[in-house]
Amino acid sequence: MSTFGEVFRVTTYGESHCRSVGCIVDGCPPGMELTEDDIQPQMNRRRPGQSSITTPRNEKDRVAIQSGTEFGITLGTPIGLVVLNEDQRPKDYGNKTMDLYPRPSHADWTYLEKYGVKASSGGGRSSARETIGRVAAGAIAEKYLKLAYGVEITAFVTSVGSVHMFPPTPEYPTPSQNPAFMELIQNIDRETVDKFLPVRCPDEQASQKMADYIAAFKERNDSIGGTVTCVIKNVPSGLGEPCFDKLEAKLGHAMLSIPATKGFEIGSGFGGCEVPGSIHNDPFIRAPETPGTQETGAGRAGTPRPKLTTKTNNSGGIQGGISNGAPIYFRVAFKPPATISQAQTTATYDGESEGVLEAKGRHDPCVVPRAVPIVEAMAALVVMDALLQQMGRHEARRHLPPLKQTVPPADSGVSRDTKQ
Amino acid sequence: MSTFGEVFRVTTYGESHCRSVGCIVDGCPPGMELTEDDIQPQMNRRRPGQSSITTPRNEKDRVAIQSGTEFGITLGTPIGLVVLNEDQRPKDYGNKTMDLYPRPSHADWTYLEKYGVKASSGGGRSSARETIGRVAAGAIAEKYLKLAYGVEITAFVTSVGSVHMFPPTPEYPTPSQNPAFMELIQNIDRETVDKFLPVRCPDEQASQKMADYIAAFKERNDSIGGTVTCVIKNVPSGLGEPCFDKLEAKLGHAMLSIPATKGFEIGSGFGGCEVPGSIHNDPFIRAPETPGTQETGAGRAGTPRPKLTTKTNNSGGIQGGISNGAPIYFRVAFKPPATISQAQTTATYDGESEGVLEAKGRHDPCVVPRAVPIVEAMAALVVMDALLQQMGRHEARRHLPPLKQTVPPADSGVSRDTKQ
Amino acid sequence: MSTFGEVFRVTTYGESHCRSVGCIVDGCPPGMELTEDDIQPQMNRRRPGQSSITTPRNEKDRVAIQSGTEFGITLGTPIGLVVLNEDQRPKDYGNKTMDLYPRPSHADWTYLEKYGVKASSGGGRSSARETIGRVAAGAIAEKYLKLAYGVEITAFVTSVGSVHMFPPTPEYPTPSQNPAFMELIQNIDRETVDKFLPVRCPDEQASQKMADYIAAFKERNDSIGGTVTCVIKNVPSGLGEPCFDKLEAKLGHAMLSIPATKGFEIGSGFGGCEVPGSIHNDPFIRAPETPGTQETGAGRAGTPRPKLTTKTNNSGGIQGGISNGAPIYFRVAFKPPATISQAQTTATYDGESEGVLEAKGRHDPCVVPRAVPIVEAMAALVVMDALLQQMGRHEARRHLPPLKQTVPPADSGVSRDTKQ
Amino acid sequence: MSTFGEVFRVTTYGESHCRSVGCIVDGCPPGMELTEDDIQPQMNRRRPGQSSITTPRNEKDRVAIQSGTEFGITLGTPIGLVVLNEDQRPKDYGNKTMDLYPRPSHADWTYLEKYGVKASSGGGRSSARETIGRVAAGAIAEKYLKLAYGVEITAFVTSVGSVHMFPPTPEYPTPSQNPAFMELIQNIDRETVDKFLPVRCPDEQASQKMADYIAAFKERNDSIGGTVTCVIKNVPSGLGEPCFDKLEAKLGHAMLSIPATKGFEIGSGFGGCEVPGSIHNDPFIRAPETPGTQETGAGRAGTPRPKLTTKTNNSGGIQGGISNGAPIYFRVAFKPPATISQAQTTATYDGESEGVLEAKGRHDPCVVPRAVPIVEAMAALVVMDALLQQMGRHEARRHLPPLKQTVPPADSGVSRDTKQ
Repeated sequence: MSTFGEVFRVTTYGESHCRSVGCIVDGCPPGMELTEDDIQPQMNRRRPGQSSITTPRNEKDRVAIQSGTEFGITLGTPIGLVVLNEDQRPKDYGNKTMDLYPRPSHADWTYLEKYGVKASSGGGRSSARETIGRVAAGAIAEKYLKLAYGVEITAFVTSVGSVHMFPPTPEYPTPSQNPAFMELIQNIDRETVDKFLPVRCPDEQASQKMADYIAAFKERNDSIGGTVTCVIKNVPSGLGEPCFDKLEAKLGHAMLSIPATKGFEIGSGFGGCEVPGSIHNDPFIRAPETPGTQETGAGRAGTPRPKLTTKTNNSGGIQGGISNGAPIYFRVAFKPPATISQAQTTATYDGESEGVLEAKGRHDPCVVPRAVPIVEAMAALVVMDALLQQMGRHEARRHLPPLKQTVPPADSGVSRDTKQ
Repeated sequence: MSTFGEVFRVTTYGESHCRSVGCIVDGCPPGMELTEDDIQPQMNRRRPGQSSITTPRNEKDRVAIQSGTEFGITLGTPIGLVVLNEDQRPKDYGNKTMDLYPRPSHADWTYLEKYGVKASSGGGRSSARETIGRVAAGAIAEKYLKLAYGVEITAFVTSVGSVHMFPPTPEYPTPSQNPAFMELIQNIDRETVDKFLPVRCPDEQASQKMADYIAAFKERNDSIGGTVTCVIKNVPSGLGEPCFDKLEAKLGHAMLSIPATKGFEIGSGFGGCEVPGSIHNDPFIRAPETPGTQETGAGRAGTPRPKLTTKTNNSGGIQGGISNGAPIYFRVAFKPPATISQAQTTATYDGESEGVLEAKGRHDPCVVPRAVPIVEAMAALVVMDALLQQMGRHEARRHLPPLKQTVPPADSGVSRDTKQ
Repeated sequence: MSTFGEVFRVTTYGESHCRSVGCIVDGCPPGMELTEDDIQPQMNRRRPGQSSITTPRNEKDRVAIQSGTEFGITLGTPIGLVVLNEDQRPKDYGNKTMDLYPRPSHADWTYLEKYGVKASSGGGRSSARETIGRVAAGAIAEKYLKLAYGVEITAFVTSVGSVHMFPPTPEYPTPSQNPAFMELIQNIDRETVDKFLPVRCPDEQASQKMADYIAAFKERNDSIGGTVTCVIKNVPSGLGEPCFDKLEAKLGHAMLSIPATKGFEIGSGFGGCEVPGSIHNDPFIRAPETPGTQETGAGRAGTPRPKLTTKTNNSGGIQGGISNGAPIYFRVAFKPPATISQAQTTATYDGESEGVLEAKGRHDPCVVPRAVPIVEAMAALVVMDALLQQMGRHEARRHLPPLKQTVPPADSGVSRDTKQ
Repeated sequence: MSTFGEVFRVTTYGESHCRSVGCIVDGCPPGMELTEDDIQPQMNRRRPGQSSITTPRNEKDRVAIQSGTEFGITLGTPIGLVVLNEDQRPKDYGNKTMDLYPRPSHADWTYLEKYGVKASSGGGRSSARETIGRVAAGAIAEKYLKLAYGVEITAFVTSVGSVHMFPPTPEYPTPSQNPAFMELIQNIDRETVDKFLPVRCPDEQASQKMADYIAAFKERNDSIGGTVTCVIKNVPSGLGEPCFDKLEAKLGHAMLSIPATKGFEIGSGFGGCEVPGSIHNDPFIRAPETPGTQETGAGRAGTPRPKLTTKTNNSGGIQGGISNGAPIYFRVAFKPPATISQAQTTATYDGESEGVLEAKGRHDPCVVPRAVPIVEAMAALVVMDALLQQMGRHEARRHLPPLKQTVPPADSGVSRDTKQ
């Protein structure tokens, strides 16, 4: 369906050639300051045509809030968001190549099998424009998470083709074992990531190598995939709903719903399968009493911090499907874009004949740099939804009489972050 | 939440020390033959204490259908399933080690942070017994899928620690490029997989090496992870709901909700990021007209097969989030089990002191062999739910007047498999 | 939440003073002709300022389809619908009467208790403009229902204050026992109803009496309630989902979600409680073999009609929560509008003082005439959703092998209406 | 579907002739004392065969908690509840009357139209035993509501056939205008209601008249309907989710999902349509500062009471779909039971012939006395779900920085009742 989330619910609409794309965000807490200025920056980071050198004031993809706020404050009612499509006229059906051949590894053919209607754009909603609604909704979730808990979500490119920022080594079969990676995710922020445009890999050398690598693929009309890593800091403990809606299950769902994704791993991930349990287990230690200069809702409300954190973090901040307060990090695999300008031998829709399909125009040879804000948005939606669910449970517990075998809920909410 | 699926909905209950575990399956098509005999075999494959040599008639984990069938036929009403717990008495609270220390990388601490109640079993629902309901429900879904479309779901172990059945090579960065792997998934079935008990890796040499590898970890009271690969054959095209419920997103969600999972990849997966688009793209070819000796509902109903299939299958049977009729395959990463008999230095629940936790008893050093039927069950739930959603859409289309720009729906249902 | 429906899902947004109101319709069958012309007529019937004499071309409340169609054909993807608000500027907060006093029996105070934000319009989403999205979505559902099964939904006013079209009598304690009522619902259609504007009560005498009655209330700055009866003809049998989503339960839910409603009754309703079971029971008779000149999807598909219908229809077309093919009819109670121009003594928001609130402007003294298209829209949404659910079940059954104890599903869909 | 509720979710299973009936309750707050003793009393009140004189310890319908509690305390995980069916053997199919004729106004025929399977019990899940799961789940919700807010839910019989406890009069067109009714609902409780067994109408005279009335119908093998009125006291303000899940919409949905219901009205209801707005409007007054001797979670937590209440209560405690803290009351219509021992002329399933159906055995001539605990249970489920939703919203607001245009959320939860 086109709805994501249980309590913080986002419903999106729109494909390539329609009047507008957008979404309705239902369940946003009332009483939060919110204007288009909170949303537009991530829209701009998602937009095509960015470059490291120039960021011209581009009026494209302007989001307009339709409802749910008044005088810049959320009312608690559904927030309608609309972004106009500039060129909304679908081309007439014709006898062109793209009408005869479904593009290999694109959604043209499966959409037709599913819906029985051949949209002029081919893959209908599989258009990259569909992600606009996600990014807009994610920006609203992020604003709340930041205000309430100081949550910081930062994604960045960790590989393009075979160029890796943290390649697996015998010593470090997974980045979760690599001190350099663990240090990076403690300190990384979006500002830093955007210094490494156009690739968004926060490492001078790797970034340059990746840029060259992509350029080479572009040169030969080919495309290449890559991975995006995302870290979420200051997530309160206790988020995630056993047993089917474990926090990593929802994150995986969210990420694999982004077009062109092929894989997801949390914490130690696939590499963690090769680490013995005795090393992989994260021992508990007392959480540091760092006072937390940051003013957040949890701070104001006097929400206590969890007493424990873990020494290592192979778990990626989630244990038993529930956040433990340590940074959550995960990696998402993006395949090489299907649309390439090279000639490809393939079959016609009716299977009657074989021929050569050659896509026109200039195509993005690698999607990972632009995927960064989309990954961040989906992460925000998952954490926000899980937080609201846990907040309700917490508040419900506070109205029960205290019992010997229970831990009394804090006067003021879900446990605070450990400010790692 | 404890419910999975939109149309074929499974709700489970139960933790370690309670009277019974089980589930309610809502949305099962009426008029299907169903008895406990359809469910018990997968329960047995999931059960602890299996071995390659002896399969004694073990009466443990007997499933009992409570409702929803009469005279062995489904009524269309909810199917209640119950499996009694043998030892349901939680131990009294005491001053024992496990009451003082949350087990590292286990769910003890996060469950307490979430619920504020300390279950005597520690992690409450994170118990492996929770998966019983999934396996029972999955068996019902599988039965329908088999009857209606001849769908076959087979999972098997592809790695234990660093021992891989198909290790990535420069030539084949991902198994999806490896002809041996692609041939295997065409032919593998459960009977074959179970010949390779206790490891369930269908390769004589790798299987033996894995068994030795696990034995070594057991010997030193340690544990190790591994991966399970699953293939789903004869899935009709058109399944998966854009944009948030793409078929791979739901599969990823399902797999990452299984305890101890750390990663999921579909088709070419993470390795596919390193393959150029020109090679990664799967060209379309005319689907073979293999008559399909197998009698299925789709066959009886005269459902046409899709006209196209793909030459290669880096997509893993899913394009644009929608199945294309080719085999769906994916890989799931399982971490090393957290409970080990080695002494581990960790902190007490209150963070006040540090100490050494030593788990008693014999623990499973590697979970992947027993994870096989759980992966299959969750795959069945996802495909079943997507199929019922698409069937409803298909039937709805059939009642519309034919239009020029649409492909008329077949008289009899969702497109049939291509019998690859 | 702001979402209605399981398979045909409508999500609405918008309050009084925002840029636009609208909705997203997810789950509409692909391949149906659909343009704004299919939706606008019901928007016009809902609009304020209609009269029996003149229907000037009024450009207000123009709906614009944003997505989900191409060349006038539904794609199967979400349909975004937007209606601009003409005056979207909320007035500044001030020291005015309406800011001091919550309006009695309005939503001002409860919205503040719920959200903690005081919208300048008072009751936020409780505005009548919120119903625009419902009516737009309902028109899409209706179009499908008509094409597929010839479903006809017609609502009309049956009482205003104490003026009843079919008052209960000792002989006919409920209209379901009244032959005149039963005949009316067989023949009524929207065209007829709109001949009785402005009241929409299809009886010359009652209509005139009601108009006078309303005028009298208007004259003394007072308001009055009334009831709307709705009939749905040609509904296929088998719709409604036991046990919580019985068809009447969903209809009741839908109707009681319309602003200002206070009651709902199906079939014989409250009056039926006074009829003995021996009379209340509807005996089955063979369904008439009327060929059905009407061309519908079910007709084209050769869908058989149910073999039985009922002689009487106290059940209101629903038995055991499931439609039986007979006309469904129900009645909805609307209270007198809360906003009246009379002075009302009430308390300030803070409870500190008491005072007199006097609403300015001309207010609608009775809402039932304009409620007619809203009732129809919500009825369409309920039936559409139930139909799509049943179509999926039906299609799923068709792929099972035939069994002795089951009735084989028709080759082509849910049973057809009995053309009563 | 068989699931009710968004946050407090109940999924039921079971029909007449199966091993057991029961449910899974998901979303119950953790840390609440709960044993079978909290549930059994309502099960007993629902049970057939009660009488005013003797209440022998009857071991029938014993509920057993399967999971979700430990040492009598809820864990926050799903609570499985099972009640064994005593006679679970469906009779063999035969050539009996009931196999040939669908019972008039029963669910036999519609279930067959829906599912295509003829259950030996006829209407499958339409059995009264299906309500067992509702009552069990409702008892859990009630326990929480009582502990947290002192919520009291009491239902009672207000009419049987034409015998009314509060018949409409010209002076009081609706009970909401009748001082005697308004006083009754302030003071009524279950203990009082059960003094009026077997009818459960808390009025000596009316009760006796109703008992005689029912006896007369029984005598002539006929049946009769009636109404149940329910009052919910001490509900906090702010519950109900605009726009589709208004509190009265959910209550209506819940009540109309109970077998044999035909109508629902809230507050002034249908009678309120005849009261002028100037009288119907409920003026606000300052809420009384009654200290509330009752110890509740809200009291302990220092939750402030709302500042306002209403002078009259035609609204029935709900305005704009949101509770206002005043008592919520509504009325539910139950039709005469369909199964009667009188001979009825009707048609066979195949429509081929007409004949006479005569039900054997003793049937309940009027269901309203036993419907009382079912109405209470469904009311509890609705209020509980709405409360948990609002608690989450409230807690979320507390983490936002205070703004000028918002009312700061109380430190401790949703507003308390006004102890009217």
